[in-house]
Amino acid sequence: MNEFNDRIRRLQERMRQEGTDGFLVTQNVDLYYFTGSMQIGYLFVPVEGEPRFYVRRSLQRAQVESAFPAVGLGSFRSFGDKVKGDFSTVFSSGKSPVIATEFDVLPVQVFQRLEAAFGAVEWKDGSMAVRELRMIKSEQEIALLRKSAQIADQALDFALSRLKEGATELELVSDIEYRTRQLGHMGMIRMRGYNQELVTGMVGSGSAISMPTGFDGPAGGQGLGPAFPQGSARRAIAANEPILMDIGCMIDGYVSDQTRTVVIGELPEKLQKAYEVSEQILRKAESMLKPGTICEDLYVMALEHAKDAGLEEHFMGYGEDQVKFLGHGIGLEMDELPVLAKGFKYPLQPGMVIAVEPKFTFPGTGVIGIENTYAITDDGFEKLTLTREGIIQV
Amino acid sequence: MNEFNDRIRRLQERMRQEGTDGFLVTQNVDLYYFTGSMQIGYLFVPVEGEPRFYVRRSLQRAQVESAFPAVGLGSFRSFGDKVKGDFSTVFSSGKSPVIATEFDVLPVQVFQRLEAAFGAVEWKDGSMAVRELRMIKSEQEIALLRKSAQIADQALDFALSRLKEGATELELVSDIEYRTRQLGHMGMIRMRGYNQELVTGMVGSGSAISMPTGFDGPAGGQGLGPAFPQGSARRAIAANEPILMDIGCMIDGYVSDQTRTVVIGELPEKLQKAYEVSEQILRKAESMLKPGTICEDLYVMALEHAKDAGLEEHFMGYGEDQVKFLGHGIGLEMDELPVLAKGFKYPLQPGMVIAVEPKFTFPGTGVIGIENTYAITDDGFEKLTLTREGIIQV
Repeated sequence: MNEFNDRIRRLQERMRQEGTDGFLVTQNVDLYYFTGSMQIGYLFVPVEGEPRFYVRRSLQRAQVESAFPAVGLGSFRSFGDKVKGDFSTVFSSGKSPVIATEFDVLPVQVFQRLEAAFGAVEWKDGSMAVRELRMIKSEQEIALLRKSAQIADQALDFALSRLKEGATELELVSDIEYRTRQLGHMGMIRMRGYNQELVTGMVGSGSAISMPTGFDGPAGGQGLGPAFPQGSARRAIAANEPILMDIGCMIDGYVSDQTRTVVIGELPEKLQKAYEVSEQILRKAESMLKPGTICEDLYVMALEHAKDAGLEEHFMGYGEDQVKFLGHGIGLEMDELPVLAKGFKYPLQPGMVIAVEPKFTFPGTGVIGIENTYAITDDGFEKLTLTREGIIQV
Repeated sequence: MNEFNDRIRRLQERMRQEGTDGFLVTQNVDLYYFTGSMQIGYLFVPVEGEPRFYVRRSLQRAQVESAFPAVGLGSFRSFGDKVKGDFSTVFSSGKSPVIATEFDVLPVQVFQRLEAAFGAVEWKDGSMAVRELRMIKSEQEIALLRKSAQIADQALDFALSRLKEGATELELVSDIEYRTRQLGHMGMIRMRGYNQELVTGMVGSGSAISMPTGFDGPAGGQGLGPAFPQGSARRAIAANEPILMDIGCMIDGYVSDQTRTVVIGELPEKLQKAYEVSEQILRKAESMLKPGTICEDLYVMALEHAKDAGLEEHFMGYGEDQVKFLGHGIGLEMDELPVLAKGFKYPLQPGMVIAVEPKFTFPGTGVIGIENTYAITDDGFEKLTLTREGIIQV
């Protein structure tokens, strides 16, 4: 309960600074973050006082789950008037109140209905307020991320036990999904970005994993076809080629992310060398993972290191399909703040959780690299990922 | 190739009728429907002439997959000018052209960036145009739905072979997911509605499956916790209680949907009777599944039948958490048109594919019912679902 009160208090503090009179939270993940409930509805947060959750379905369940009062939404037509009546100090100030909502995920159609329902209101984009609050995790949140990382580790062991020449990427990723699911993975990985999708994990090998994708990451994979053009393919895995095992897992809403490079036999020397560079970058990144480091400096360091190693054009994808980051925040969604990329000036703070993933792409040959999830602490970091490092030889 | 040309031709015909000068397709599923590619970008469709796909990532892959020319998107700042240059007949008519896009899924933030990039344009909601085109499936689309239903049938057999007293819902749904995945399920089920989510399937039993949910369906399930408050729970399954096995599966983008009622032992007589009513409703619905039947009439029939059987308050959920439909269109997404509900005046047409799912909820006891996916044909229907009907006793 204190946890949710604290989140609302931090949101209200920011609303005061930014001149926001009310915040209408609409997205399921954001609703869960602020109330503990993900039932369908809207949370209204006034700049002062207690929020109220207007629930379409299921009210019965929201009343059990939500940290704040949950009431029936009623007809959408009267929803605006209901909120205005309940929060008369926000809505009766003479001028149109400033109401924020999540423009980054809210569909235009829903927004237009809200505009009609609320009438004279000055709407503004509250996406960054929510995303920046969620960027700093509490101890309870980090505990769930720790648990998620443990399960990803167990799932990898299971997949390794099944790995043999001729097994397909799809078979292995099925094994990983099966194991994570049995251990409590909720069955999906949430992303916030429009058109971004993920399944639980990805096993990609050789030429298939080096294919470019629309997915906002360095190694999306070939996928099963153009209707899901990323992730594992039906490709049979051969000896002496790189196998990338990228495993996500969602435990009680919280997502961890890790990648390991695996090989049946031995990798060609060129790829072994590139792998060493990815671990060198990870070590350098770890030396910078402490409060105060500026996010973009991590990316700049990595890019320079890749350049010095003569691998610049292979770093985080190849050619025009390179992505321009070294890592990303992670929590309830896979694509949270901060991003380790140019333009992100956030200093690292205790409570940030970041997946750092130096990878190198060799078109037609494969992708190698490593990815760990870290929590920033008062004086450095805690590595949440448990799996052993180094190229895993089977 | 003809398939995609035909889809664009039908869209352009509708654009002419509605006075739309151009259509900017933004959503990944819609992009796939019109081009055969799901890479990240925008498809511009002029009211006359060939469309063009502006791709952010991966252009290389879009050029292989897309039925229409794919070009690099370039910087977003210059994107509007680029489209205006490429489609000068649309944009140089003197007055602001009318451009449609999918307001039902497009986030406000992306829309505002498009508004800024395109300048003087009259934007309008094209969601219904796209959803109504996609409502009528081609023979190729129905062939994929048939394949999807076959795999769901095999997955159910696998789960039934594992079912025993004390097994948990989570264990059984893991088995179903594992089997569908091995057989080519793409690992997710897409939904169009804001905040609506699904995993592959759901095994729900006894009191857990009768819990109300925010999910827009009659039997959402308890779930693993408030961070995913639907689907299977950790509950151990007992003898003589209803087990609902609802299986989705996505093959090459196309989703089938089926539900069966299963029991270890025997169901109480009250539930057996209710199950019989659900099959009676399904039979009556089948007698109406032919071109010309008005969608809402199917719902009205079902509601009356439930009322006559004294089961009205248990139909499609219980009390305030009832949903007001009998079935839904299905294809690339789980929540397509038409909906079998009041207000949906569409006459059935050949090529529509609909999941019909009469279910009855008994709070604290369970949910029983059945669900099949049907394709409407020239003179009736084809039942795509292959699984045997009746209560499945184990």
